[in-house]
Amino acid sequence: MTSTTLEYRDGDVRLKGILIQPEKRSTGSAIVLFPDARGVGAHAIECAGRLAALGYPTLVADLYGDGVLARDMAHAAELMHGLRGDVDRWRARARASLEALSRQDGVDRSRLAAIGYCFGGGTALELARSGAPLAAVVSFHGVLASPRPGDAANIKAKVLVCHGAADPLVPPAEVAAFEEEMGLSKVDWQLNAYGGAVHSFTNPEADNLGSPAFGYNKAADRRSWAAMLRLLKEAFA
Amino acid sequence: MTSTTLEYRDGDVRLKGILIQPEKRSTGSAIVLFPDARGVGAHAIECAGRLAALGYPTLVADLYGDGVLARDMAHAAELMHGLRGDVDRWRARARASLEALSRQDGVDRSRLAAIGYCFGGGTALELARSGAPLAAVVSFHGVLASPRPGDAANIKAKVLVCHGAADPLVPPAEVAAFEEEMGLSKVDWQLNAYGGAVHSFTNPEADNLGSPAFGYNKAADRRSWAAMLRLLKEAFA
Repeated sequence: MTSTTLEYRDGDVRLKGILIQPEKRSTGSAIVLFPDARGVGAHAIECAGRLAALGYPTLVADLYGDGVLARDMAHAAELMHGLRGDVDRWRARARASLEALSRQDGVDRSRLAAIGYCFGGGTALELARSGAPLAAVVSFHGVLASPRPGDAANIKAKVLVCHGAADPLVPPAEVAAFEEEMGLSKVDWQLNAYGGAVHSFTNPEADNLGSPAFGYNKAADRRSWAAMLRLLKEAFA
Repeated sequence: MTSTTLEYRDGDVRLKGILIQPEKRSTGSAIVLFPDARGVGAHAIECAGRLAALGYPTLVADLYGDGVLARDMAHAAELMHGLRGDVDRWRARARASLEALSRQDGVDRSRLAAIGYCFGGGTALELARSGAPLAAVVSFHGVLASPRPGDAANIKAKVLVCHGAADPLVPPAEVAAFEEEMGLSKVDWQLNAYGGAVHSFTNPEADNLGSPAFGYNKAADRRSWAAMLRLLKEAFA
């Protein structure tokens, strides 16, 4: 594997993602990975490395500019709300990352997937709602609400939502609204709810945050990772 | 594979299930399969055959007596309500099937799973709520409501619910109540919701019923079958 900093732009904003390439040339499929609200951090890079080891070139997207990593949760929230508050800007930022990936040698534009964690999961879904050419989208403990739920009609991707059933940041009402949104569309979607799992269930560092809302859940981490791999296999078959 | 009629009893009621044995002796794991409300029919036997081909001895349980297959939907409803109306009888009937399976040569009582379809999915869950020694339970488009939701505390099995998100027979409120029931317990549970799937989504014959509430869904059928196999592998590891 090789890991390089990939510089790209969204208008005037200079973005710095991390592109991890597998040893062997893949079949053209490639993945853009949207990190959680903190930005380009260790968990996202580690997950991208695991995907690259399986043969998928993976770009850890920079949503904020200059590859910034938030200092703390307050800073992360500030960065995140800066994008979530303007859906067009949010979508354009995500789209710039997908475009940067698709310009790489050997990447087939018909074999792209977007995955994401927490805010990044919501970003992957929002990118799909924008009508982006995606074969698959996977959200892990992601936000599900959209400012434009009607745009589900634009989704081309197969959608998999991996949701912690005890996640207080994505409460049952938000899940129900998402299922209703999807149900009104023709989207090929699935939602896996993992009992006992709270926010950030894929991230072992979540236990250090000292909040019952956040926590690692080994079973949910493994099951959701396996579910993602199956969907990618299906979407790229 | 060999398929034989297995006679067993629940008190005075003589039951006739179908036991399908793999060619090769398994590792001791075995599965009881509860059919849909119609009773011991072709879909259940076909699914049991696929499990046996993978090495799992599988008993298609008879819940009604004499291996009866309902004449029509009205008859199926009558048979089903006869059991659902008396939860102790319902659980005892399910338990008799599990006991009959566990008495077979080579079956390890610590490596038992129960799966079921529609009413049979609810039966597998109800058997788990009774405290039965099960390593895994999988419900496909099953009823989720229980007359004794508090008994979730007795569940020893890993639970997987494969649910059609558009199933009018298992509406969102029933799913929400189930998730709440499970959430109050320490059960290792998962619920996979499949977008667009209605009742009986695993059964190709469902399309012949001429009701929009019932229908086959190939993607949900394949995905739920794969999800079950992974849970069995995990539970029997």
